[in-house]
Amino acid sequence: MSYPVTQEYIITAEVHNRIVRAAYMHRGYLADEAEIAARFSERTARHGIKTHNAIKALHLDALFGSAVGGCKPGAAIQELPSRYSAVARWNANRKLGQVVAEKAMMRAMELADQFGVGTVVVDDAFHYLWGGGYVIDAARKGYIAYTNCTAALAEVVPFGGRFPTLGTNPHSWAFPTTDAVGFPICIDWATSTVAMGRVQQFVREKKPLGAGWAVDADGKETTDPNRVAALLPFAGHKGYGLSLIDELTAAFIGGSLPSIRSRPTMGNPCEKHTCCFYFQCIVPDALACEGFALGRTMAENVKAVIADIRGHGNDNVLLPGEPEARAWDRSRQLGGLLFTGAEIEALASIAAEAGESFDRSLIAPVLEK
Amino acid sequence: MSYPVTQEYIITAEVHNRIVRAAYMHRGYLADEAEIAARFSERTARHGIKTHNAIKALHLDALFGSAVGGCKPGAAIQELPSRYSAVARWNANRKLGQVVAEKAMMRAMELADQFGVGTVVVDDAFHYLWGGGYVIDAARKGYIAYTNCTAALAEVVPFGGRFPTLGTNPHSWAFPTTDAVGFPICIDWATSTVAMGRVQQFVREKKPLGAGWAVDADGKETTDPNRVAALLPFAGHKGYGLSLIDELTAAFIGGSLPSIRSRPTMGNPCEKHTCCFYFQCIVPDALACEGFALGRTMAENVKAVIADIRGHGNDNVLLPGEPEARAWDRSRQLGGLLFTGAEIEALASIAAEAGESFDRSLIAPVLEK
Repeated sequence: MSYPVTQEYIITAEVHNRIVRAAYMHRGYLADEAEIAARFSERTARHGIKTHNAIKALHLDALFGSAVGGCKPGAAIQELPSRYSAVARWNANRKLGQVVAEKAMMRAMELADQFGVGTVVVDDAFHYLWGGGYVIDAARKGYIAYTNCTAALAEVVPFGGRFPTLGTNPHSWAFPTTDAVGFPICIDWATSTVAMGRVQQFVREKKPLGAGWAVDADGKETTDPNRVAALLPFAGHKGYGLSLIDELTAAFIGGSLPSIRSRPTMGNPCEKHTCCFYFQCIVPDALACEGFALGRTMAENVKAVIADIRGHGNDNVLLPGEPEARAWDRSRQLGGLLFTGAEIEALASIAAEAGESFDRSLIAPVLEK
Repeated sequence: MSYPVTQEYIITAEVHNRIVRAAYMHRGYLADEAEIAARFSERTARHGIKTHNAIKALHLDALFGSAVGGCKPGAAIQELPSRYSAVARWNANRKLGQVVAEKAMMRAMELADQFGVGTVVVDDAFHYLWGGGYVIDAARKGYIAYTNCTAALAEVVPFGGRFPTLGTNPHSWAFPTTDAVGFPICIDWATSTVAMGRVQQFVREKKPLGAGWAVDADGKETTDPNRVAALLPFAGHKGYGLSLIDELTAAFIGGSLPSIRSRPTMGNPCEKHTCCFYFQCIVPDALACEGFALGRTMAENVKAVIADIRGHGNDNVLLPGEPEARAWDRSRQLGGLLFTGAEIEALASIAAEAGESFDRSLIAPVLEK
């Protein structure tokens, strides 16, 4: 039996997590690492994130992770002593990114509780999958949260250049706006115009790319997806600047040359080839200046500001994070995680690799009313 | 005598500052406020910032500031007590923005010295002119610095909307990269595609706007500069998200409805109509994880990363902040501040308004070799 590739199916989080856990343990990860990775993939699926789900996570692990030494199952995080009390410095020792990021964001919240703002920086890290997942979770817990990281591969050409020396370097912010609008507003994207995966989709669909998306091997802009050698930053110098923020922050933390990141056979063998993470949480109460108009509370004020932005005929305006919140609601209403037929086949392969059963009778097509 | 409008002229910082100081004092500002405002305008001029110099500063003060109550000469900043030690909360009481911002960034540096990261938020604030000026100065002093603010007027339509309910809300970051590249890298721009002043320039020059820059009164995109009613955020949903960050941060601090900001006659008279500021400094040492490759120091590592980004044939790549650094060097070499003939006339008018002498014999044309 095989599934129509675009049909949607529901599987329970329990089944999904069992398979993902087994896959990580099959690759040598400890039970607690596999558990956190499975639950984080569940979170991505609940938010409708197709580009960074369990399938992508395990694919990244195969390409750059446990298979090639970029990630070390069972590694221990080392917290370095710090004379600066609101900042924690961690050496991840290449431990699985999702595990490190979940713990780091939790530590940033603790520091924020104490100092108003808490920062955790992480050196020698492995891909954390989806920054939005960490900041949305922190925002649900009441914090203004931010993370950036250096992406695995340098695939992006700096503005005015011709050779890719920058990662797709994402930024993710989220705000505790659940009281105001029902979900955390989350601003979360890469600094490239598109992802390389999107270019490959255009190759398959034989469609031209948009202007300003990518360059060929000579560094010249191209709209032919077959000729793409590297991506461009979004919005020219502005996206380039945002990408540089991740590289520079990483350079201060301990990250090395971007052009050889996740490419351990390139460059001086004593160079580092790993990513860096930056996390920050702020307690909203630490910012509130006690002067909200018309006697509003902070939450009422945030709600009034958002209502003003979406008022005045701006009825069609979505808030960033709204599509993810809708997906989350739908997942809850349907009682499970939603995957396409193509993704179900990929999960079946993951189960097979791990020697885990994959009971197809538990997978139900979504029949929309 | 009048000056050719595009010819460049040099005036000394001393003459410039005397005129600007006199202009602020003529409008009722205290000597120390006028002094800080004059020096900050000197800093903008030294960096070649034409859009945010003394002329713009005094124009903003006339439009939204001391003339209409949006800014209060002689106002006192109030630091609110905080139970969060790494965050300071200030009520600016509408004191002149440049003065508040200079002091706030200094306080953020002090907090960073103690906690690793220092944050200062400011409510009830008046326009601080140029965010880049504060972060570049902090980066020269060794900090990773960031600021955002809500811009005076809501001129920007949220992505997918039709009516302007967002400010041009800028972000400014700077990094202490003087050892690495000779100047602080500074990422600094508004979240609108262009400034309204640029649209007016296109009206004067009878040129069409770029696609995606602006909308007409019906909220429809237009390239006719004469029909522009509002601006669009850069890069669609990405610039929109970046603009929302400023509005949401301000909403938590104490900012009110964006659509009536700096428009005191609009909306409920008990609403607030002022801006908010956010400042943050980080001590680089607080981030460094002691694992730089090949035994490099932090500064050597930052230098190596930047060299890699600009290597591999990327010879034409500029770093953000490089044009401002070149202007700074040129100003120093030429021994004064550079203004066009048109700007010199504007400075002459400013001097006349304040009853200050304007000795044209002190103004020399730039004769490039």
